[in-house]
Formats: sequence, structure tokens, C-alpha cells
Amino acid sequence: MNPVTQTETEPSMAMNPASETVNVALLGYGTVGSSLHKLLLEHRDHVRHTTGRTVDVTVALVRDASRTRDTHAHKNNNFRFVDDMTAVLDSDVHLVAEAMGGIEPAREYVLAALERGIPVVTANKQLIARHGPELFATAERYGAQLRFEASVCGAIPIIKMLRESLAASRVDRLLGILNGTTNYILSAMTEHGSSFNAALGEAQKLGYAEPDPTDDVEGVDAAAKLAILAGIAFHTGVTIDSIRVKGITGVDAEDIACADSLDYRIKLIGRAERRDATVIADVSPMLIAKGHALATVAGALNAVYVSGSTFDELMIQGPGAGGPQTASALAGDIVSAMGSAPSFLTRDPNTGPIPIGSPDLRQERFYVRMQVPDRPGVLATVAQSFAKHEISIERVIQQRSENDTATLVITSHPTTAGAIAAATANNDGDEWQTTVMPILDL
Amino acid sequence: MNPVTQTETEPSMAMNPASETVNVALLGYGTVGSSLHKLLLEHRDHVRHTTGRTVDVTVALVRDASRTRDTHAHKNNNFRFVDDMTAVLDSDVHLVAEAMGGIEPAREYVLAALERGIPVVTANKQLIARHGPELFATAERYGAQLRFEASVCGAIPIIKMLRESLAASRVDRLLGILNGTTNYILSAMTEHGSSFNAALGEAQKLGYAEPDPTDDVEGVDAAAKLAILAGIAFHTGVTIDSIRVKGITGVDAEDIACADSLDYRIKLIGRAERRDATVIADVSPMLIAKGHALATVAGALNAVYVSGSTFDELMIQGPGAGGPQTASALAGDIVSAMGSAPSFLTRDPNTGPIPIGSPDLRQERFYVRMQVPDRPGVLATVAQSFAKHEISIERVIQQRSENDTATLVITSHPTTAGAIAAATANNDGDEWQTTVMPILDL
Repeated sequence: MNPVTQTETEPSMAMNPASETVNVALLGYGTVGSSLHKLLLEHRDHVRHTTGRTVDVTVALVRDASRTRDTHAHKNNNFRFVDDMTAVLDSDVHLVAEAMGGIEPAREYVLAALERGIPVVTANKQLIARHGPELFATAERYGAQLRFEASVCGAIPIIKMLRESLAASRVDRLLGILNGTTNYILSAMTEHGSSFNAALGEAQKLGYAEPDPTDDVEGVDAAAKLAILAGIAFHTGVTIDSIRVKGITGVDAEDIACADSLDYRIKLIGRAERRDATVIADVSPMLIAKGHALATVAGALNAVYVSGSTFDELMIQGPGAGGPQTASALAGDIVSAMGSAPSFLTRDPNTGPIPIGSPDLRQERFYVRMQVPDRPGVLATVAQSFAKHEISIERVIQQRSENDTATLVITSHPTTAGAIAAATANNDGDEWQTTVMPILDL
Repeated sequence: MNPVTQTETEPSMAMNPASETVNVALLGYGTVGSSLHKLLLEHRDHVRHTTGRTVDVTVALVRDASRTRDTHAHKNNNFRFVDDMTAVLDSDVHLVAEAMGGIEPAREYVLAALERGIPVVTANKQLIARHGPELFATAERYGAQLRFEASVCGAIPIIKMLRESLAASRVDRLLGILNGTTNYILSAMTEHGSSFNAALGEAQKLGYAEPDPTDDVEGVDAAAKLAILAGIAFHTGVTIDSIRVKGITGVDAEDIACADSLDYRIKLIGRAERRDATVIADVSPMLIAKGHALATVAGALNAVYVSGSTFDELMIQGPGAGGPQTASALAGDIVSAMGSAPSFLTRDPNTGPIPIGSPDLRQERFYVRMQVPDRPGVLATVAQSFAKHEISIERVIQQRSENDTATLVITSHPTTAGAIAAATANNDGDEWQTTVMPILDL
């Protein structure tokens, strides 16, 4: 594909409400792009009924136009493949749907469309997470919409809920199961009692985990999604760097079993909340009471829970990934963009003044699993250390010993992560192996 | 309040995208109207940021304007109370938010606004359920939006999800916990082992149930909401009369306990689904596996689950009622209406050609609790009767007998409601008291 020469142009007539037909360009024609094309053809009548306008996919940008097959061609005579972004922009296009993935040239092409006043819908999480500010500023400057529902949590319409349904309500807390791979692994560990490595191997075999699963299992992917969602929920810029991240590689089959016996499930949770005048955000495996809806989110599903004093709490769950699912979200964004007034959602959503705070002072309950030498007095030493750091213990379970090592499972009353770290480091010369996870109170 | 004289007028400049300020009229100023006023004042800056326009509540219609106090007056100098709808329509209003409740005069006032091309947002379930076709036809004729998110399931943005996010995706099935009162009662029966009457009394004391709870406990309210949601999900007119309705008055504490021992919860479910070329809809208490998210929806919460081949499944839950929660939904609709292009969502959503089918032929599993005389041969008679109607039994539990009566709990493999009715009516001269509920397979 050729790079686009960026020229100064007048904002085009893109998305003029008076025009009857909306010409859509697809950037990329893999599973997502092709599924999207199919959806827009199949639901053409209903989209016209909903928006008063006709959607027409006129062009798709691919690597090699001469060798790409159009499986839907018989229904759509106007449609053609091109392998040059300039040809897309010169083709009287009113809306661009980006489903290429990757940073470049997606970034360049999206900017080129926005600079012509052409609204863009995108499924590209990396692009929004890394270049959101630049893209939003460009969209604002040229008065073009940039919608990105498909970039986070697949088919789940959480962005629309935050940007539109809750635009005049205050969100105080956002929690999510934002990564399907880790949720699949934790669900498999819970269901089959398997180890992390066995569950990861199974997930890789079934295609739920990448050959290199680092971004997923270390919580990096969840943090990127949390940054996008928290920015919108709290109207402020939240970068990945400001989020404390812990993945699931330290979660042991024994933690799953202990949590189960305490009536909890372990989930990798991304959360962001207002605290005083700041927003604090972290990603970590956490314990959730089995009776809460978030605990029932199984397999590769995603879910987002938001709360605020006006609407109380809302939770939405669904598939977090998949070609047709992502196409469904893009199609929804296209319908909404076709139905939008010129000034709607064209300004950077993340311009609020709320500073990002530190999660260190958050008061919450913790689950602590400690492996300690199996000899008289160790429990007393542990209990003294917790007392010294003013941590009130809710419950202690001492498991049967193996190889001269005893396992203590402790749940605390509300305290800070710092106090727990200090209490479990005070080991009196012994090695105490500890696993610490917050317990979510919802 | 005086009735409005309906006159032929030109569509007004209501919601002209070029106008900077959107004047909003509130019809009704109770908890909902007053909460909505507060939300729009508090989030004025963010609404401007989102829509590019300023929202200004200029007038509220009340019974007696001279005796109504404005608690937010210090923030809003333009605002005044009136007690005459003509004064509202003559006051340069761009958008009407209806929070009066009841059919008349709400219907007349909403029609009067739509006839002037003024978009309306409403929280009035009865109005939409009973007069939807007339209101949608008027909205379409005058090119005005009619949004009604707040009319169903409180703060849950399910209407927006169906009308916008899934406008280009096919919904195959919609299931919901649509009534908070019955969910509160069933949750209390589950949690405390209490009888239906005790749980109802408790719900009435706490204000979760009306003094006359008929509409809630008999499933009528859930059916009204299901009619609205199913119409939108399947693009067809679904009337309450076409929905088979069974309430929860026949659910016994023993059913809750039996379901629990089989790892199910009992919920009042409204469901609608495509079957062949029809849509079938019913409301009934049903058994749901404890591990499914719908089973965890507790207390007065509502939830809606939709599935379709493209997006798989989406579920959304939240508060189904409450003044501030309803105001939050109205505020979201106002933001969306302010951001809509002229032709967006102005056509009747329920004009599809899909006929309504009968649920009689649906194949599904059933839970059957039977009280039969405690004497030799009864189980054989019951088993023969099930066999005669070709019902395959999955599981039978015979409870201990009391007063010469034995309780049989039977779960069947997939069959029809008609076959179950026939099999349990074939009582060989004895009286068999039976409770039958579908088992949801999700």
C-alpha cells in the first residue's frame, strides 16, 4: 500500500445528513472486515429504517487488490478492492471502518480520513491506547467522529454506555474482566483444578492464548483496555503507565482451591475509581464472592461493572473478542455515526482535569496465602507481625503441612497493600513465601 | 392543567443542529423530574463537551405552578414552572422530557410535542406499551425522535443497545428478569426459605411491592416490558395479548428448595425468540443453573440477556426502577437526542413482518413437582403416564411423605408444555397437584 500524501483539504461533505447514501470504505478485509461487509449487506434495510440513510460498502483497502476475492460481490455491484489509500480517499467515501490492526499504516490512514472530516470507526485497541490523544485532537480539529467501541471488549457496547447513556451521570467506580485469555485460564483452573501452566497450554492449543502469552497473562492487555475505559468514564487522560499492573502467573491451583473454600472466585480485574479528587487504577487478580455476577463470568467472556450514586450499578458482559463479534461492534458504530448530528462526540473525551492518584492508600480486605516453616511458634510470629502493622485478621486457615512447610491462609479486615507487604516481610529470619490478592467488596 | 388544542403547525426548528442551546421542558416534577433537572445542571459542561450544545431546562409543567418550589433555582435563572401545556409548547422548547406517568394527559401532551416536530424522551412504560403504535406513527410523520429508554428496566441502556449497537446484527433470543418486585420476592424466598406470602409482605413493608401487587406478581408488568423489548429486538409488533403469562403466585418454598438441591435458582423470566419464521414470547417462573449470570441477579435488580449468531451473547443488568435511576436513563436519552441527525430513529421500530407464533411447540426441559397419594404403585402410574406421552425423564426425586401424600420432583428431557400437561393430567382417578416450570438451557 502506498503512503498517503497529506494535503490541506476543505472538510468534505462526508456524513452530510442530506445525502441519501453513505459510502463506507473498509480498511482491511480479513475476518473482521469481511464479516462487517456481510452484516451491512444483510441489514441494509433495517439500517435504512433506523438512520433514514442507505449504507453502501463501496471500497475495501487490501494488500493486493488483484488477488482478493469478494465473497459478497453478487449482492453489491458498486464494490471494489483497492490497494492504495489515496484511491480510498479519492473515491467519494463518507465513512471509514478500520479493521487492519497494528499501528502503522493504520494510524496514518485514520489520521488522513479524519483530516478530510471523514468519520472513522475502528477496532484497533493498540491504536487508541497508544495514539488516542493525537487521534482525538485530529478528530476534534476537523469535526469528525472517531468511534472505537470495537477496540475494547469486542461486542460489548460499554463505550456507548459510558459516552452516551451515562454522559449526564457521574461514574464513581469501574471494574472489569477485560481479558478473555486470562479469564479462560482462571476458569479452567477453577473447573478442572489444573495448574496455571496446564491451563495456559490448553488455552494455547484452543487458540484462546497466543504462542507468546506475555501481554495477556501479565495483565498488560487488560491495562491498555482499562486505560481507555477509565479515561472515558472519568473524563480524564489515563495512561497505561499510571496503572499498577499484576498478572496471573503467580496464581496457584492452591489459591483457587483456598478461595473456593472461602466462597470466592479469583478473577483478573481491572479497576479504576474516584478517590478524593483523584482517579486510581490497577489491574490484579482479585477474589470476588461467588454470588456476585462478576464471579460467574466464565471462559473467554468479558464484563464491565460501573457504579455511581445516580444509577447505582450497571454490569454488561459478552464476548471480548472474535471476528464476527468485533464486526458487530463496528456495525453498531457505523449505524450510530450515520445517525449523529455534526457536533456529536467530536471532542476528545479525555480532557478532564482529574489527576491520577496512587493506589497505595486504598483501604480494602486482602487474601494472603503464606508458606511458612512448620514448627511451633510460627503462627504466633505471623500473628504478631500482622498486629504490629495494625492489620486486623478476619479469618485464618492452617492447611496440613507438607515437607516441613505449613500453609496459612489469612483474610484481613480492611487495610492497605503497604501494611500487608510490611507484615509479611517481617519474617524473623525465615523465608515466608506469600501470595497477596485484594478481596473485592461489591 | 388545560388540555392542548391541537392545531396544524409547521414542524418547528426543534433540535436544529445549528442552534447552540437546547431548551428542555420537563413534564412532571416529582422525584424523577427533579432528579433529572439536577443531573442536567450538574453535568451541563460535560453534555456540552459531548454534544457541542448547551442543555437548558427552561420550563417544568406541574399541577400548580404557584405552589411548586424549585430546589435548583439558584443555578438556573431561566427556569420557571407552568401548569398549562400550551405555555410549554409556546415557550421555544426544543425537547420534551415526560416524567408524569399515567396515560392521560401524558399521551395527549407527548403527541402535541411530536406533532410540532419536537423530540420527546419518556419514562412512561404504560404509555409506550399501550399507545406505542400511535406515538411511533406520529413521531415518524413529523420526523421527531421518540426515545423511551427510561420506560423499561430503569437505568439499564437495553433499548439503545438493541436499536443502535445491534441495529446491524440479528437478535435470535431475548430473555430478561424484567420485574424488580418479583425478583425481590423470589430472592427473599431463596435466601430466607420464606413462603411467597411472607416474602410479599416483607416486600410491601419495604416499598418494593405495591399494596395491590397483582400486576407484578401475576407477570403483567414483565409482559408489558417484554412486549416493548421484543418488538424492538425483532422489528415487529408484539402486543401483551400475544404473550403467554404466568406469574409467581404458584411458586412454593418447596419449589425453591427443590430447585436449590438440583443446583438451580427460580426466576421470573420474560423471553422472546425466533422460531422458524415467527417470534414466540412468554413470561413464566423458570429454573436457571446457579452458575449462570442470570441466576445471580438478586434483590430488585433487572437484567436482560440477548443472543445472536454474530455477537454470541450479551447481558446487561442494573436497577430496574427508582427516581434517580430513571432520571439517569432520561438524561442519557436527552444527550443522545441532542446528538442525533434529523432522520435518526424517527421511524416506528415495530413495523417488521414477523408473525407471532405459539409457544406450544417449543421443545425444552421441564421441572415438575407433583403431590400424589402415598401408596404403592403411584410412581409406576406417573412413570407410565410420562412414557405414554413420550416424555423422557432425566431425574426423579421422591421426597419423604406427609399426610399420606408423597412429593415427586421430576426433571424431563426436552419435550413440550402440552405433553407435560397431558402426562400430569392422566391421574388414574387420583388428584395430582402439579407445579410445572421450564428449565432454561443457556
